[in-house]
Order: sequence, then C-alpha cells, then structure tokens
Amino acid sequence: MASKTQVGFIGLGNMGNPMAKNLLKHGYPVIATDVFPESCKELQELGAQILDNPAEVADKADRIITMLPSSPNVIDAYTGPNGILKKVKKGSLLIDSSTIDPAVSKEMAVAAEKMGAVFMDAPVSGGVGAASSGKLTFMVGGVEEEFTAAQELLNCMGANVVYCGQVGTGQAAKICNNMLLAIGMIGTSETMNLGIRLGLDPKLLAKILNMSSGRCWSSDTYNPVPGVMEGVPSGNNYQGGFGTQLMAKDLGLAQNTATNTKTPVPLGSLAHQIYRMMCARGYASKDFSSVFQFLREEEGQ
Amino acid sequence: MASKTQVGFIGLGNMGNPMAKNLLKHGYPVIATDVFPESCKELQELGAQILDNPAEVADKADRIITMLPSSPNVIDAYTGPNGILKKVKKGSLLIDSSTIDPAVSKEMAVAAEKMGAVFMDAPVSGGVGAASSGKLTFMVGGVEEEFTAAQELLNCMGANVVYCGQVGTGQAAKICNNMLLAIGMIGTSETMNLGIRLGLDPKLLAKILNMSSGRCWSSDTYNPVPGVMEGVPSGNNYQGGFGTQLMAKDLGLAQNTATNTKTPVPLGSLAHQIYRMMCARGYASKDFSSVFQFLREEEGQ
Amino acid sequence: MASKTQVGFIGLGNMGNPMAKNLLKHGYPVIATDVFPESCKELQELGAQILDNPAEVADKADRIITMLPSSPNVIDAYTGPNGILKKVKKGSLLIDSSTIDPAVSKEMAVAAEKMGAVFMDAPVSGGVGAASSGKLTFMVGGVEEEFTAAQELLNCMGANVVYCGQVGTGQAAKICNNMLLAIGMIGTSETMNLGIRLGLDPKLLAKILNMSSGRCWSSDTYNPVPGVMEGVPSGNNYQGGFGTQLMAKDLGLAQNTATNTKTPVPLGSLAHQIYRMMCARGYASKDFSSVFQFLREEEGQ
Amino acid sequence: MASKTQVGFIGLGNMGNPMAKNLLKHGYPVIATDVFPESCKELQELGAQILDNPAEVADKADRIITMLPSSPNVIDAYTGPNGILKKVKKGSLLIDSSTIDPAVSKEMAVAAEKMGAVFMDAPVSGGVGAASSGKLTFMVGGVEEEFTAAQELLNCMGANVVYCGQVGTGQAAKICNNMLLAIGMIGTSETMNLGIRLGLDPKLLAKILNMSSGRCWSSDTYNPVPGVMEGVPSGNNYQGGFGTQLMAKDLGLAQNTATNTKTPVPLGSLAHQIYRMMCARGYASKDFSSVFQFLREEEGQ
Repeated sequence: MASKTQVGFIGLGNMGNPMAKNLLKHGYPVIATDVFPESCKELQELGAQILDNPAEVADKADRIITMLPSSPNVIDAYTGPNGILKKVKKGSLLIDSSTIDPAVSKEMAVAAEKMGAVFMDAPVSGGVGAASSGKLTFMVGGVEEEFTAAQELLNCMGANVVYCGQVGTGQAAKICNNMLLAIGMIGTSETMNLGIRLGLDPKLLAKILNMSSGRCWSSDTYNPVPGVMEGVPSGNNYQGGFGTQLMAKDLGLAQNTATNTKTPVPLGSLAHQIYRMMCARGYASKDFSSVFQFLREEEGQ
Repeated sequence: MASKTQVGFIGLGNMGNPMAKNLLKHGYPVIATDVFPESCKELQELGAQILDNPAEVADKADRIITMLPSSPNVIDAYTGPNGILKKVKKGSLLIDSSTIDPAVSKEMAVAAEKMGAVFMDAPVSGGVGAASSGKLTFMVGGVEEEFTAAQELLNCMGANVVYCGQVGTGQAAKICNNMLLAIGMIGTSETMNLGIRLGLDPKLLAKILNMSSGRCWSSDTYNPVPGVMEGVPSGNNYQGGFGTQLMAKDLGLAQNTATNTKTPVPLGSLAHQIYRMMCARGYASKDFSSVFQFLREEEGQ
Repeated sequence: MASKTQVGFIGLGNMGNPMAKNLLKHGYPVIATDVFPESCKELQELGAQILDNPAEVADKADRIITMLPSSPNVIDAYTGPNGILKKVKKGSLLIDSSTIDPAVSKEMAVAAEKMGAVFMDAPVSGGVGAASSGKLTFMVGGVEEEFTAAQELLNCMGANVVYCGQVGTGQAAKICNNMLLAIGMIGTSETMNLGIRLGLDPKLLAKILNMSSGRCWSSDTYNPVPGVMEGVPSGNNYQGGFGTQLMAKDLGLAQNTATNTKTPVPLGSLAHQIYRMMCARGYASKDFSSVFQFLREEEGQ
Repeated sequence: MASKTQVGFIGLGNMGNPMAKNLLKHGYPVIATDVFPESCKELQELGAQILDNPAEVADKADRIITMLPSSPNVIDAYTGPNGILKKVKKGSLLIDSSTIDPAVSKEMAVAAEKMGAVFMDAPVSGGVGAASSGKLTFMVGGVEEEFTAAQELLNCMGANVVYCGQVGTGQAAKICNNMLLAIGMIGTSETMNLGIRLGLDPKLLAKILNMSSGRCWSSDTYNPVPGVMEGVPSGNNYQGGFGTQLMAKDLGLAQNTATNTKTPVPLGSLAHQIYRMMCARGYASKDFSSVFQFLREEEGQ
C-alpha cells in the first residue's frame, strides 16, 4: 500500500479531536492546530504533527479539514492574518465541517477560489459518540467534481456522506434538519405533558403516537419523558446528548438565514425563542429534550 | 351461527355511513338515525332500520354507536329531549366515536351511569378511506371490564382498537396525536420552504430529513411539497385528505383542554392560530398540508 | 331622605368585601353570603345581614350583586340547588361582576329571563385598591333599559360605569382589554431587555419609547424594569399588583372565546402560553410585570 | 451672517430628498450623490452640487449625512471602492441616518476612526411627511463630545434630536421602538377583531381600551380598524403610512440583534413572522396596520 499524503486538521475540540483520530487510524498523516495548545497534546502523542496556526498547516498540506465552533472562528481560520488562505497551495481542497451560516460558507468559497483552492462545506449530524465511532453523517455542499475527493476523507470519519448541491447547501441541510428536530422535540414534549395531565400513561401515549400520524424522531427514538425509553438523556436527568445551548445556536442560524431570505418560519422561530428562554432559566447545558421538564409544573407548585 | 343482536348507530355522515355499512357487512342488524333524513336512504336500502331520533334507537338497541361532528351534537344526542338517555335500557353499552372535548365525554359517562348504562369514548384516526375499508384506529376510554364488549363491535370497523384508560382518555389520545401532527406538518412545511430557498432540491431535502432526526410522519409519509411524493394531497392541489377546517377544530379542542388543565402548549397553540388564519384566508377546505402553500411567496410577488 | 332598599351581595372575597362595604357606606342595607363563613364576619360587624346561601338572599332582596372567582362558581350561585334562581323574585336585577366567559353570562341571562328576572354582566377593572376606594371601572352588558338602575348601585363602588351593549359585552370588553394588556406587558419587557443588552440606559429607553410609537400603558404607567419608575410592582420585587396566575386565567378566557368564535389571536395566544409557562416556573403569585425577570438571563449564568 | 460651510448628503431617496432640501432651506450648501442619477435632478435644480460618488463628496465636504436603504448599501457607501473612507478628511463628522444593524454601525465607526473621522448613527422616526416638514425624531449614538456638532445639522431636519449613548445605540433605540410598535399593532388588531366578533362596537371598544390598561399608540393614535379614527391609513384602504415590507425589514433587524445578543423576544419574533407571512400573501406595500384585515375572515367565507 502506497503511503497516504498528509491531511491538515484545524480545530481539535470535542468533535474535532475524535475526527482527527479517525484520520490517523485510517493511515493518514495528520498536521493539526488549535487555538488552545493543550487540545493538541493527545493528537501529538498519537503521532500528529502540531503547528502554530492555520497558515502553517496550509503551507504543508493540500487537503485541510476545519471543525470550529461558529462563523467568526471559521472566518478567522480562513481569512485572518494567520489564516489558511495566507499560504494555501493552488488546487488545495478545503473542507469545513463546522455548523455555520451558509452565507459565510459561500464567502469562504469565493475567497478560496481567488487563491486557486476549492472550498466545500460539510457539516455533520451525530454527536461526540458518532464522531468517536466514525459514524457521523456529512452533508456536503460544493462543486460536484470535487465530491469524490472529499468523500475519500470523510468516509474515514462518517457512515453517510451525502452530496447536497452547490456550496452552502450542506449547511442548509444541517440547519433545516435541526430546525425541524427542535420543533418536533418541543411539540412532543407539549403533547406528552398534555396527555399525562389528561390521564394517559406516558408509555401508552408514546406507543399510540408512534403508530399514528403524530410520530416523529423525538417521540419514537429520543422521547423526552423520563421512563418512556431507555438509553436516552431523559432517563439520565437530561445529561449528555445535545445541549440546549447548542440547539439555541443552530436555531439562531436557521433564524438568520430565514430572515435573510425573507422566509416565514413561525414554529422554527418560536422554538428558537423557547430554547433561548430555557438558556436564561438555567437549562443551557442540559440536553435539549429537557424542554419537557421546562414546560412541566415545578414540584411544590 | 346464532344471529347477532342489533346495534344502534346515530350519525350517518361521511364517516358514520361507511362505518355502519361495515357493521351490516359483519352481520349485525343496524338501527340508525340521523338529523338529515336523506343521509339514511343508503343504509335503509342496505337493510338498516331507520328511526326518528336517538331516544327511539335506545328504546330498541342496547349497544349504540354515535358518530357526530362536535360536542354540542353529542350532548344533544345523549341528553337532549329526544336523546339516548331518555329511553336507554339498563346495562346498555354506549360508544361515542366523535372527536370532542374529553370533559364532555366524562359528563356523558356520568349521565349514562345514572341511568345504569355504560359510556365509552372511542374516537378514530384514519379518514373516510379507512372508514370504508374497515381500517380505522379506535382509541378507547372507559371502564376496562367493558373493553372486550366494545372491541367486538369496533373490530368490524377498524384495524386497531387500543385501550387508553378511563373515560376521556380516548379523546385525549386523539387530540394529542392531532396536535403533534399539526406541529409536525407546519414544521415540515417551514423547513422544506426554507431549504428550497437556500438552494436545496426538495426531494433530496426530504430524503436527508427522513434519514435524520428531523424525520416525522409529515416529512416521510405525507410530504406537503408538490412533487416530492406520490399519492398525497400535495400532489393533487391539496384536494382530498384532512381539511384545514377540521384540523383547526381539533386544535381548538386541544387548546381548550390545555387551557382547562393549565398546561402550556406553545407550539400547539401557535399551530392552532396558523390554521385559524388559513381558514380566514380561503384555505378552509384544502388539505391541512396546504400550509406549505400558505407560507410560500405568492406567484407574481 | 327615604331609607334605601336592601341589596344582596354574594361573594365576599378580596374584591367583594370592599365592594360590599362601599354599598353599606352609601346607606344600602346589605344582605350577604359566601361559601366561606369566616369571610362574612367583618361585614356582619358592620351591620350586614348574613344568610346561608344565594337562594335565601334572592328570597329577601330584589337587587343582587355577585362577585365570584370563575365561571363554575357563577353557574352554581345562579343555577345550583341553592342558587339565586331557585327563589328569585320577578323583576329582580341581578348584576354579576365576576370575570367569566361571556358565553356563561349569556346562559345566565337566558336562565334569569325565564324566571322573570334581569341579568347583567358588569366585570371590573382596577384591583383591590380601587375596590376599597370606590374607584373601580365597571364594563356593563345587558338590556339598555336597565342600565340606569344598575348604574345607581355601581356608582357606589366605581368611578366609571361604561355601558358596552348586550349581555356578555361587559365580559368581552374586560377580556379584550386584558389580552391587549398582556401583549403590551410582554412586548415592553422583551423590548426593554433587548435595549438594555444593546447598551441603552433603561430610563432613557423608556423615555424614548414613551414619546414614540412604541408607547403603551405598560411602558409609560407600569414599567416592568426595576428602577425605571416608582410606585409600581417592578420597584418592589414584583409583589402586589396583578398576579401572573390571574392574568393567565383571563388569557385563558380570551383564548376560549377566540377559539369558540374562530378568531385568530396569535399574539394573545402566545402571551397566554408565556404566562402559563411562568406559572409552571414559580411566578404564579408575582405581579404579571415579572415577565421582564422571567426573560432575563439568570444571575450566575 | 457668516456663510455656512457645505454639507455632504448621500442617498436622495424618498426620505433623503426632503431631508437634503431642509438643509438647503437652512442655508447650507449641499454636495450630494445617489446611485440613481435621476434622483439628483430636483436637488440640483434647487442649487445642490451633484457628484459621482461618496468618495468625491468626502473629498469636498467634512460633514456628511448618509440616508440609505439597508446595511449593505451603508457598508458600500463607507468602505466600498468609491466609498467615503477612501477620501475622507481627518476630523470629518459622518452621520448615518439609515436604519441598519447596530453591529454595522459599530464597524463603520471603527473604520472611520482609523481614518481620523468620527461616525455617528442617527436613525429617524417619522415618515416622509415628517421628513418634508422637518419634524423627524433623530436617535443619535456616538461620542458624546460630538453630539452638539451633530445636533446643529440634525435640528434643520428634525423636531427632536435625542442622544442615546455610544455608537449603535441610536439604531438600538429605533429597532426597539419599532419592535414594540409592531407588537402593539398586531395586538390591537387581534383584540379589536375579537371584540367585534363578541358583539362590541369598534368605536366603543377603542374608547374603553384607551381609558384602560390596554391603551397603546396603535389603539389611540393609529387604530387599524376602518371607521374608528380619521386621517389614518385604516380609513384609506391601508394606503400610505408605513409599509408592511418596511416593518418586516425592521423586525428582521430586531430579530438579528436579538439572536446575536442571545435575547429572547418571543412576541417580537412572532410579530416578525406574521409580517413576513403578510408579505407572502400580497400585503407588502400596504400600511402595516393592514394586519387587522389579514386576520379577519375573508368576505364570502
């Protein structure tokens, strides 16, 4: 087997760390960087080369993956004073797996193109668990001709790699899914709460919904009512899972893109507000299914 | 085979008509009535005995099914001057398949009990098609000991007969399901619309949602976007299916029970308002998935 | 001066008590009753005659005022086994100052008319303070010819007595006002919170709103932000004033009448849900302006 | 009287045109530009000097006012290839009266400071009428020491010039006011509609609200119900006034700033969605009080 060429990786946080490890496992030499040097130690011990900043990574690797918390970080990592585009090689493939505003993805793609490089957006679904086990789903936007090249790398880290269309559509798909997920979760929580108040057993109600037209992922796979289902955060005091704060962030992106495209999203918008209120009332780090608890009467009331 | 004893049927509308026919098909002599005499003709030709009012039906049959449009009709059919309870026999089994306020079901049960009769609520899901083919789902509330007796009749008209608990819980389950359905449908419509505006192909977006956590019945079985799916109202200019006006009615019931039990239902409540606005803007008789159309930019805008 | 004829008063709670006292002050002999005997002591010491139930009051007085917590209490006080209508005299004037569903007011009016009596709805605005000082506003619905007779009594307890139209319109006016009040209060709270986050001084922002088109009663008379205004509950940790629970009740009435008349009330409906969520999160007995606090980031977050 | 020094004016649209005229009236020589040359003719005939682009204006005038439709236009006019900052003189005073995102105002201020100039945001309330009669209200954000200099110019065009605080707070005040205005307008429309359905006369209901706690600018100054008030758009088929599309734009700004500052604005957000739905249903150019019409039952329904 010919040795594989090196891959750059920028952003070694909760998600980036296990993703980069999976590249190493698949035999790719990894050249990485992170704004927090301590985040790099584990990768370094596993054999990754650690550099000071994105520009230096771009100087050495012509395939780079970025995994960062939000739009400003991505803008900085690409177009900042030590950003990728300062030293990017012609023909490089730049894949951004952060969840950000699709408009920013498009800007990055334009900036990359000016330098002769190709930018693709490839946000993921599936959390830290899926990142560790290499079972992420990637939603990919960008020039179709480059999809095969991107797929080769993404397959090391994910179970599904879906081509969505032009640059930004990966983000669009991610944002759309999470908006509908939030609506389904709050809707399921309201519904289960109402049913319980009306005298229905929660397990029975979940069963009825799941064989009827009320069925959704939040009712049949991730039920927010403690005791209805095993192995989900509602059974563990809403710890683990996908934090309310992260859901609020994604709903903020959905809200912004809806505002910018003048698209009415009444339920998505209210879902955003509810998760925002929850953050203000102490639910920021609980799983987003804790909206069931937020809507319930407090004990002692 | 011993001949079966007769069954009373009150309310021969779009749903009641095919339901009563299925009782006849299963060999039950049917004694029926309806406030509109012309609704009775077809049943009469098929061998049913037609009487003037519910009291007369109750005088002859000790198992009676009611299928009426709304709470006031049910109250009248049971407790009105010519209502069932005027002549009901001791030990009669009264099954109401209307979709009404669970509080009214409980009142009817109390009133029936005073006369020595048993009342159960058994609303259905599945529309006229399922009523004709005997594939309805019945959600049944009432005394558990009587469930077997009810099941015998309901099995002639439905594919699923689910026991939900005490009187009123059948209605509760129905109302809960439809509230979550409405939320899922509006959510799916907003999401598909936003995705399309962001450049995603609708079929591809539906596919991505359906393999992800945004999945729900409205996205994978009854998609509101024309062209995504065959055999659903969105492919037929939103004709047929479940009318916006009927959904608004069910959401009104959900709203009332939530208000009466002091349960917060923020998305259910907004869904109610949106279907109410649609009724005011000419969508009353279109399928409830036409909310996709309602949220889209008008042509020529 | 000829001695005045006696007036019946049913319901001596927080509001009824000072209202009945004002009738005594104006020289009217009062015959009263309440389901809680201890509520009657103070009135008895001031000279009122206390009877056992509404029927007995109706037997002695032909002008009766009722002031009760909610629709079921009113139904019972009028049509229950010991209700007013059991012994009401022909030609009696029955004035209900409770805040209830206008549909119930209409039912009571029909029932009273059958007994030859006249029923009017006359809910109040202004709280316990206005009740004590005789400064309530009465919104009166009923037969116009009887308005003058009602006014004579209501003037003893209120500063404004407004004729609104047929029976039920007094309730309608009350419910409409409180729905718009709730919307204005939540809107003001959101707006002030947003402005503060954007760097505006709260007093300055209130001043700007109050000289502009954002002005409303909640911004200029009852500002929800501590420190902006003196003598309002926001300056006293949201104690006193009009409780969140009471506002949620009135919004429930608004919601029910809107549902029953098929009227879309999107913001009123969401306001209802927000006050309902607040009740579930420990705000039930705080003044309704505490929604500002509910929407703010918790300390330590 | 010493002759006044010249003032630059960029953006001669519906608002900018009468504003610039008022500067001329007050004796200021005006140097203007607009992307549409035809917009400049009238000013030129009145004696203004017309130049090709903002950079040229900045080359000649050291006090410049900009009045543009939205954030991208402002960014271009200041930092674009022919933007003000290309040729701005040290010590220049740059006043932006556009309604834009406060974050953009802050960016412009930073960019101006780098060139030695001072930037202030000074959005207006009051429409074309107030612009013509010089009765605008200016909400001004920026360095306090420069406020007097700004006031001198703004007084020529407005009746109120309010200092709000640091750069961006003028925009913040404007956005906050309009968000509360939108909430009050929709709330008033729902409430009036509900009251009318419940049998209240609209004029009487408006009178009751306006003497009670439901009172707001939309109920007492700009009532949305035809026939309640004279001289407002509701009396003129919702023509003139402040367009639904413009309100939707301002609510989009409010939404974005709320999202960026993580501030929950549930009613503001729903108001945004409602105005967005109205734009999709043909109300874009009607006055924003037409939400009353949008919520009403269609004729013939």
